[in-house]
Amino acid sequence: MARLGVGLIGTGFMGKTHALAWRNVKAVMGDAGASVAVPHLALLCDTPDRAAGVAAQFGFDRATSDWKALCADPAVDVVSITTPNGLHHEMALEALRNGKHVWCEKPMALTLAQAEDMAAAAKVAGKVTMVGYNYLRNPAYTHARKLIHEGVIGRVVQFRGWVDEDYQADPDLEWSWRAKLADAGLGALGDIGSHLVSLARGLVGEVESLIAEMQTIHETRPLPGGAGRAAVENEDAASVILRFAGGVQGSMVISRSAWGRKSRLGFEVHGTKGMVIYDQERMNELQLYVNEGDKAVQGFKTILTGPAHPPYGAFCPAPGHQLGFNELKVIECAALMRAIAGETADMDFAEALKIERVIHAIAESARAGGARVSLQ
Amino acid sequence: MARLGVGLIGTGFMGKTHALAWRNVKAVMGDAGASVAVPHLALLCDTPDRAAGVAAQFGFDRATSDWKALCADPAVDVVSITTPNGLHHEMALEALRNGKHVWCEKPMALTLAQAEDMAAAAKVAGKVTMVGYNYLRNPAYTHARKLIHEGVIGRVVQFRGWVDEDYQADPDLEWSWRAKLADAGLGALGDIGSHLVSLARGLVGEVESLIAEMQTIHETRPLPGGAGRAAVENEDAASVILRFAGGVQGSMVISRSAWGRKSRLGFEVHGTKGMVIYDQERMNELQLYVNEGDKAVQGFKTILTGPAHPPYGAFCPAPGHQLGFNELKVIECAALMRAIAGETADMDFAEALKIERVIHAIAESARAGGARVSLQ
Amino acid sequence: MARLGVGLIGTGFMGKTHALAWRNVKAVMGDAGASVAVPHLALLCDTPDRAAGVAAQFGFDRATSDWKALCADPAVDVVSITTPNGLHHEMALEALRNGKHVWCEKPMALTLAQAEDMAAAAKVAGKVTMVGYNYLRNPAYTHARKLIHEGVIGRVVQFRGWVDEDYQADPDLEWSWRAKLADAGLGALGDIGSHLVSLARGLVGEVESLIAEMQTIHETRPLPGGAGRAAVENEDAASVILRFAGGVQGSMVISRSAWGRKSRLGFEVHGTKGMVIYDQERMNELQLYVNEGDKAVQGFKTILTGPAHPPYGAFCPAPGHQLGFNELKVIECAALMRAIAGETADMDFAEALKIERVIHAIAESARAGGARVSLQ
Amino acid sequence: MARLGVGLIGTGFMGKTHALAWRNVKAVMGDAGASVAVPHLALLCDTPDRAAGVAAQFGFDRATSDWKALCADPAVDVVSITTPNGLHHEMALEALRNGKHVWCEKPMALTLAQAEDMAAAAKVAGKVTMVGYNYLRNPAYTHARKLIHEGVIGRVVQFRGWVDEDYQADPDLEWSWRAKLADAGLGALGDIGSHLVSLARGLVGEVESLIAEMQTIHETRPLPGGAGRAAVENEDAASVILRFAGGVQGSMVISRSAWGRKSRLGFEVHGTKGMVIYDQERMNELQLYVNEGDKAVQGFKTILTGPAHPPYGAFCPAPGHQLGFNELKVIECAALMRAIAGETADMDFAEALKIERVIHAIAESARAGGARVSLQ
Repeated sequence: MARLGVGLIGTGFMGKTHALAWRNVKAVMGDAGASVAVPHLALLCDTPDRAAGVAAQFGFDRATSDWKALCADPAVDVVSITTPNGLHHEMALEALRNGKHVWCEKPMALTLAQAEDMAAAAKVAGKVTMVGYNYLRNPAYTHARKLIHEGVIGRVVQFRGWVDEDYQADPDLEWSWRAKLADAGLGALGDIGSHLVSLARGLVGEVESLIAEMQTIHETRPLPGGAGRAAVENEDAASVILRFAGGVQGSMVISRSAWGRKSRLGFEVHGTKGMVIYDQERMNELQLYVNEGDKAVQGFKTILTGPAHPPYGAFCPAPGHQLGFNELKVIECAALMRAIAGETADMDFAEALKIERVIHAIAESARAGGARVSLQ
Repeated sequence: MARLGVGLIGTGFMGKTHALAWRNVKAVMGDAGASVAVPHLALLCDTPDRAAGVAAQFGFDRATSDWKALCADPAVDVVSITTPNGLHHEMALEALRNGKHVWCEKPMALTLAQAEDMAAAAKVAGKVTMVGYNYLRNPAYTHARKLIHEGVIGRVVQFRGWVDEDYQADPDLEWSWRAKLADAGLGALGDIGSHLVSLARGLVGEVESLIAEMQTIHETRPLPGGAGRAAVENEDAASVILRFAGGVQGSMVISRSAWGRKSRLGFEVHGTKGMVIYDQERMNELQLYVNEGDKAVQGFKTILTGPAHPPYGAFCPAPGHQLGFNELKVIECAALMRAIAGETADMDFAEALKIERVIHAIAESARAGGARVSLQ
Repeated sequence: MARLGVGLIGTGFMGKTHALAWRNVKAVMGDAGASVAVPHLALLCDTPDRAAGVAAQFGFDRATSDWKALCADPAVDVVSITTPNGLHHEMALEALRNGKHVWCEKPMALTLAQAEDMAAAAKVAGKVTMVGYNYLRNPAYTHARKLIHEGVIGRVVQFRGWVDEDYQADPDLEWSWRAKLADAGLGALGDIGSHLVSLARGLVGEVESLIAEMQTIHETRPLPGGAGRAAVENEDAASVILRFAGGVQGSMVISRSAWGRKSRLGFEVHGTKGMVIYDQERMNELQLYVNEGDKAVQGFKTILTGPAHPPYGAFCPAPGHQLGFNELKVIECAALMRAIAGETADMDFAEALKIERVIHAIAESARAGGARVSLQ
Repeated sequence: MARLGVGLIGTGFMGKTHALAWRNVKAVMGDAGASVAVPHLALLCDTPDRAAGVAAQFGFDRATSDWKALCADPAVDVVSITTPNGLHHEMALEALRNGKHVWCEKPMALTLAQAEDMAAAAKVAGKVTMVGYNYLRNPAYTHARKLIHEGVIGRVVQFRGWVDEDYQADPDLEWSWRAKLADAGLGALGDIGSHLVSLARGLVGEVESLIAEMQTIHETRPLPGGAGRAAVENEDAASVILRFAGGVQGSMVISRSAWGRKSRLGFEVHGTKGMVIYDQERMNELQLYVNEGDKAVQGFKTILTGPAHPPYGAFCPAPGHQLGFNELKVIECAALMRAIAGETADMDFAEALKIERVIHAIAESARAGGARVSLQ
């Protein structure tokens, strides 16, 4: 069977997750895209001091510290881009130019213009692209979407979303590139707000217009080595009120400075017959309320995911045994494999660009003091 | 010891709660205001068919169906007004004119002008007034406020509030006066949003400006008796983004059509050192996260209220045994008694007027498509 | 209408709760037993230094420090006994001898012999008796029982019960009468284990036999004033495995030294179709799982109590607004009123004696090293 | 670097989990044992119709349907045994006889005699063995153990354990080999009770004696194809009261017929200063209560696992992102690798035999009507 040569750029948090996904996708999912090809870990790119060691650990054939060489390498068919956000644009373009498929982490880029550029390049190249909105892959989320689309909670009337972490909550945390517009672009909106937008779109459709505020909670941070303090140039938090194209109203709250929250990404969807609630911090659970039957036994149901929620069963035949974060990436990888095998990519650059438009619209509204911004 | 003659107008949900509070305040709280007077259930006003029976049940000396007579009755020192919102203004004015103290349910009135009128009348009359924002009385809330004011979570940076119920969630529910502007005034904002505003102010201060949206989820409702359908003239839901006077940013979401929510009124307050979370559906619990000590044992603490959270101990010496909703009204009644005895009333008409200003500002912003409205 | 004269002995935790129940039962419940009589707070008995003051606070006509006089007082029709356990026997007998109805706190007495004596005396006297197993009155519990008896979870196959508090968890807590067999009788079994047995019987019937262990976690405690240490003579904790008459198997765990638990009294009932779970620390909630319909939406439902769970609606017409601990005693008082009016007393001395038999059987088995003890 | 040849027998639930663990252990954990060898997936054994396909999917070099050949294959250094329980004994002995290391699923065997035989064979062979008590590997569990051993909750006084699933809850489920003593041995005790015993031992030490009951909830089950009904020969549920060697008392409840429970394996450990609670259905959380500081802010903390709880960080650098069930097996595999590299195996056949002794003692006590059984 044909091999699909994998090139991985970046070996941090997301790099390792990509590597594990490539290692496991066939073993877990069987023939997901595998009728065409079996992933083969061909080439890994990192800094010269790390590349060889990590390649050995992750099981790649070879290592390099030259990402352009990786993009051009004939053994590479698909490039995983897991570097800091500011590098995505350049690397994705290079990979596409070399005729490679691209699996790129989110957000796509620092600016909307870069993201548009990437989507255009993908179209020209005719290669498969995928952006890493991995929470879309959680069987609990997928099932929530299915229930909503099947009308189990009736007509959807309101969306409430939240995404909070505390990685920038500590006032004494040192200043880093994350605080700099030129290196990080947006702050919480890019890092985590984009995930929330990805979930919202899947449930209630496109955002039509919004009004928003942003907040930089910690305005300066100490520079490393006691060299004074530097400004935080992007937002720690944002609040948004949305109108979706279908008439649903909604709101979103976003913070990277919310003490105690580690991966709190979730939503409530209100319908005329019921409600669905999800939170990634309990990623194997879904809450469902339906107004039916005797009032005396109505209540929110806590549904534990299991084989009834595909593709959970590919990981474990026993319900309630719990999938983990890394396994979401395996499911995403399977979707990418299927796209390479000819199915439609469900979160390609064109699709992910729509998410970028929303987070940049939030920033635009906030900079204009909460003025309405339309997305068409 | 002197007696404080109580007159009660209205005997529905809130009327009964007031009656129980008056019956219990001294037994529970001891000398809360009782050095001056002991409440005596003097006169109850309801419709002619109900007044006598309910007076006997609740333990009032006498009954009437004439609320003006009640306001003028010499045996009455304080008037509890628990009628539909549209009647508050007229009744409060009449009671004050007759030199009575007034305990009025929320919201104060249908319009901001009426509420202003009531506050002015109270000032002229020089009598004690109290508006029924009973959730302010929950020991869990009071303790949250204390923790925040003592700086346990550091500088407050963000407020998130929600209040959801489902009493108007059913599309097939019949049309009622609640749907009519002239009778009910605001919808969810008045009924429940006002409670949320009361909690927010106590924690983070006055609202400076806001942007908002409203939503009428069920645009018409069937008239009783199959007589067609009538319009719902007020809002089922609202979303708000706020700036507080002290620089805190915040958001609020409000719905009377949120399936499964029965009394979900709560908040998260984010600080630079921690977070406090409260929800009235688990009204005897408080969640607290503080960034201190070993990361490996940090987490949200679920604090069960007990005697360490006054005045819980007046109801029960054993922690975790659970107070109930009606007992919040006993605490409120004690605050009213203390005000009558000479302490400062903590939620009088002047104070409650500030809440009215916020909910009407929300409506104003929403009607203007989300334009910023300032409150000064 | 006739008045029912109430005499109250003891004004601590339970004394206040009884006083509030008597004050509120008619106002809340309307005609529950009130067609016959209206409770009237006639006489309160406490120590000489407290009696008059507390009587004034609670609203009793008169005060005394002579409990025998109270039992004989012609204005008293029913005696509430809320003194330490060691006094119940003597007081109940005296009240019955004087032709009074008796509402006695649990456990009935120090020894099984005393409890049997009390049941016999009640039979001879022909008066109404009631023992204070107030958790039986929780609408959440009542509804659980209804669901189980209606077969909603199928044939019951297993009972799991727990009751934990931490009032004796602190090793440095001073020695008190609670530690002394002659004054307190059983320890955790009497104080809280008896409540658990009351709930279990209501759900799955009588206990047929059991095996058990007990544990005195803190073997000595410091005497007040630094006067050395004294032995703790009764149990802090117990574990039990039960066979119920109907064939159900079960277990119970009990501790008064369980740090963090404040009022954790609850159960799981396993059936062939589903499961019901209840915990008093969230006393307004019930968990229900039923194996029906699509596996993909099965889960435990969290049911919030409301008017669909009588008599919740007598306290509040709005669901989810939360009853409190003290209100359980109002419901119990209503049951007592109905019994006095001619209905069957549902937890009289004869019935409560069956609970005593179980807790003493647990102690007996434990003292015999876990030997089986049968109850017939 | 040397390769460690892996042979896998069985490709069901546990077989796939072993395969994934072998695939990932080096990539995730880096040099865990890898200074000596890198796992290499050499040979997979399954039925003739499945072996080749699954070997290709899982990434094994070769396939066979002859497990004895696998045990003798020179390319195999370690044998993963994931077949039904009745086959473990024979296969483990064969592998050891051939000088292979053995990673065997739990329970070890059908009978205590077989398990003893296996432990003896391992000693003779001098090879590394490991039994699959994977829940011991959860960072939440490991951290609970650390907190307990460091005295954070003071002296341990009581253990409460539970393990419930519902895979045999349905009365209409067809009869299978699981119901047959000769094929399955013990029922719920072997399948899931053994896991609970593994956790208990790690926290509070060895069991000294116990009393217990068992229950066969569904006494017969329908045979496939409508061929009547057959008896269920082993237990669906058990309840146990334990004395641990160090004086701690405890209890365990176990059921494979508990509707709604999917992987509910957990415990409370009560200490003189606090309590720790864990439940596998929320495997990334730990509850901790410590009696320290102001009573007004005491409560159970919900700790979300993260990099502060090794080896979580090897899977993900961000806290709260959630590990999954399969990842526990990766941690177990790393422990096996380290044992092969010369460290002490922490759950070898000798150690696992102690767990077998406990579950068979439970069965023995139950068969004797709850008589005390000592383990020495």
